[in-house]
Amino acid sequence: MEMLMFNINRDISTPIYLQLYENIKQNIINNTMQHNEKLPSKRQLSHYLSVSQTTIEHAYQLLCDEGYILSRSRSGFYINDIVNLPVTYKTQLPTESDENESLYQYRFKLGAIDKSHFPNDLFRKYAKESFDDHQICLLDSGHKQGDYNLRKEIRNYIFHSRGVNCLPQQIIIGSSTEQLLSILTDILSDAKYMIEDPIYKQVRNLLKRKHVPFEFIPVNSNGIDIEQIIRTDFDVVYITPSHQFPTGVIMDLKRRTQLIKWASEKNSRYIIEDDYDSEFRYSGRPIPALQSLDNTGRVIYVSTFSKSISPSIRVAYAVLPQELLSIYRKKTNIEGGTVPRHTQYTLGRFMSDGHFERHLNRMRKIYRNKRDIIIRELKKYPDIFSISGELTGMHFILTVTNGLSLEDCVHRVEQMNIDIKPLAHYRFKQNDHIPQFVLGFGGIPDEDLENHIHALIQCFTK
Amino acid sequence: MEMLMFNINRDISTPIYLQLYENIKQNIINNTMQHNEKLPSKRQLSHYLSVSQTTIEHAYQLLCDEGYILSRSRSGFYINDIVNLPVTYKTQLPTESDENESLYQYRFKLGAIDKSHFPNDLFRKYAKESFDDHQICLLDSGHKQGDYNLRKEIRNYIFHSRGVNCLPQQIIIGSSTEQLLSILTDILSDAKYMIEDPIYKQVRNLLKRKHVPFEFIPVNSNGIDIEQIIRTDFDVVYITPSHQFPTGVIMDLKRRTQLIKWASEKNSRYIIEDDYDSEFRYSGRPIPALQSLDNTGRVIYVSTFSKSISPSIRVAYAVLPQELLSIYRKKTNIEGGTVPRHTQYTLGRFMSDGHFERHLNRMRKIYRNKRDIIIRELKKYPDIFSISGELTGMHFILTVTNGLSLEDCVHRVEQMNIDIKPLAHYRFKQNDHIPQFVLGFGGIPDEDLENHIHALIQCFTK
Repeated sequence: MEMLMFNINRDISTPIYLQLYENIKQNIINNTMQHNEKLPSKRQLSHYLSVSQTTIEHAYQLLCDEGYILSRSRSGFYINDIVNLPVTYKTQLPTESDENESLYQYRFKLGAIDKSHFPNDLFRKYAKESFDDHQICLLDSGHKQGDYNLRKEIRNYIFHSRGVNCLPQQIIIGSSTEQLLSILTDILSDAKYMIEDPIYKQVRNLLKRKHVPFEFIPVNSNGIDIEQIIRTDFDVVYITPSHQFPTGVIMDLKRRTQLIKWASEKNSRYIIEDDYDSEFRYSGRPIPALQSLDNTGRVIYVSTFSKSISPSIRVAYAVLPQELLSIYRKKTNIEGGTVPRHTQYTLGRFMSDGHFERHLNRMRKIYRNKRDIIIRELKKYPDIFSISGELTGMHFILTVTNGLSLEDCVHRVEQMNIDIKPLAHYRFKQNDHIPQFVLGFGGIPDEDLENHIHALIQCFTK
Repeated sequence: MEMLMFNINRDISTPIYLQLYENIKQNIINNTMQHNEKLPSKRQLSHYLSVSQTTIEHAYQLLCDEGYILSRSRSGFYINDIVNLPVTYKTQLPTESDENESLYQYRFKLGAIDKSHFPNDLFRKYAKESFDDHQICLLDSGHKQGDYNLRKEIRNYIFHSRGVNCLPQQIIIGSSTEQLLSILTDILSDAKYMIEDPIYKQVRNLLKRKHVPFEFIPVNSNGIDIEQIIRTDFDVVYITPSHQFPTGVIMDLKRRTQLIKWASEKNSRYIIEDDYDSEFRYSGRPIPALQSLDNTGRVIYVSTFSKSISPSIRVAYAVLPQELLSIYRKKTNIEGGTVPRHTQYTLGRFMSDGHFERHLNRMRKIYRNKRDIIIRELKKYPDIFSISGELTGMHFILTVTNGLSLEDCVHRVEQMNIDIKPLAHYRFKQNDHIPQFVLGFGGIPDEDLENHIHALIQCFTK
């Protein structure tokens, strides 16, 4: 037991033995000193604290009297098991919130990935390499936009797969879309935002937290309401055109063109394009990113590795148009880099060796297979279900069509121990009583698909 | 060459051949298509875009005419070297800002570490382990406060080395002090802050960025002005009591007690204790953290691994008092975790195997040695220099005492190519014309100490 924990303050009037008593008691109550741990001997402690042995004896006696410690003859003092003490000030700490998650039996969780196909061996290799002796420069703090090598790889990837035109200099690497949006709101200070309803909650939460003014723009079955964007006429619009979150609507070329036209009419206007899960497009011709259609520098492209690598890697990126890059570079009051350099190195090497592309191609097949199985099975029950937004990504919208009310559906889902969120959960302004759910399938192991589907069918059968 | 980059919009009136021309031209100008790259054949591209070969021919011809591409007989079309073209719209991107840093010959940089003693081998081992097949759960997003194992190790470390009383449940892991402070300001919404002057700029910048009201409290040679804290009477005070940044003043026990007494008088009052470099205390009895003196739950303890591991690891932590933990747990609108789980695992294992303590003990000797050499040499020139704030950490204050003005000193430093910041750089409210510098020594390799010291002496000799 370290003796540093005993803090004696000679400048206050409380007697030292009482301070010591209080100190040890609190440590026991807080569990920082644990059952059966041995206390320092009176001699040791009196020497360490430069107080008399009598002082220590007073304190220990008081603790013995109250049952916090025990004296064992010829051995010393030990912490008692305080669970059975009649009165302690044991503080009730809330339990860790994520622990509840595992209670669900069937999990259609958004943002979960198929872990069984993760290229652990390759990441192991590159992670190891990042701590090679000749990579010692990775211990320096590095560029605030992120490592150049990783930015170069990202630039190549988004150019070839999404048609995004940029140079590595325009890329900022961050921990998440949320964190990058926070930086964007600092660059675009004083701007007002238009955001989709329904929406990825973190985006709305971030704006709210930063007291950034915003307005919701409704998303209907054809996508975001462009007319209302034009009418509202705030500076910045945040959208997910390739697979609207969570409805899954894909914005058509006509609306894309209208939106870019709108943005190009004023220098203060910007479009934030969140391309969060476009890696996994299963059918139809790929639609290039909105950014690739924009010649006027009005689109800020944002994406993440949360789906394509893992949610735990905490790497996302934003592509700034030239004008915003200049503002960013000039501003000294911008948050610094948050991604560990060894993580950046590991990911950059994984990409530069061509493994990222291969990984995506492999995972696309795996997710398509999961999606196909679920949809095929659910389509056998056309009276109960209809499906939409399934062309891209790792979730789609499941509508319950047999006349059950939303409330009834939500109740049934809880009863069956199914983790699935109603679409209404992501709506803020529009009132929604349609029994629709956002079904995430990325994290369901192949061998559990059948029982998950069966649970859904059972759940919603009248 | 991927064909996705060719974006044709059939909904606008611009002819397709012109769209294609503009598209390819922009790609060449932006360097996304590079010199000598081959264009798709007319046949391929017409097939891919479902347009006639004549359309492609029109576009290619136009590009040839303007010199963007070249036709090589029996081979096809290639991107020309556009450097010599008379007119291009080549955009001038600002150069990467960090590139300038290496221009300095002598670097007394703050926040730099001695890289030559980094335990690469151990980090390599644990990083490798983090990608073991049985660690696959690390691919899940994890707890928003950070991995429990790492929090447990941090709890043990700060308890034994700094006397901080807490449970792992009270710890939040983040990327940096700056990022954790951002979370704290969201938890303590509506609070007004008192911060030190001089101060670590990121702290002041963060508050400014988030429009959080704050007031500067002067730090003098005895530390922060407690009387002014009591007079100002805002809710939260942010301090660096163990080694004030940047002055290096250590807050004495009397002031600590006064401050805790002040905080304990109202439930809205909190002290944020930033214990950023207390690992490296070279002499004198260690003063336990302020948090350890506090029985009333008014102290929020914050620290970082930037100095003890490396600035590039991007891991810091905050210890919330019970009351704030409850608020944090209840609030849904708080930023999620930003530290990659493999990094958390690697660091946690490094700590749990006892290497962190050994590493600190080794590094303490190394930094003490650097400090001792610099101070010993500078003390040979008592007419030129005086030194303060050198008991802890990786920097101290160097005062030039031979009558040179601050302006003169700054000019000389620039002339000599020395990277050292005047103390005035960290002051906001107090006007300061004393020729004082903040000398960081952590990053100077042992073999360069001599020439660095020599440069300083030469620089300030009249």
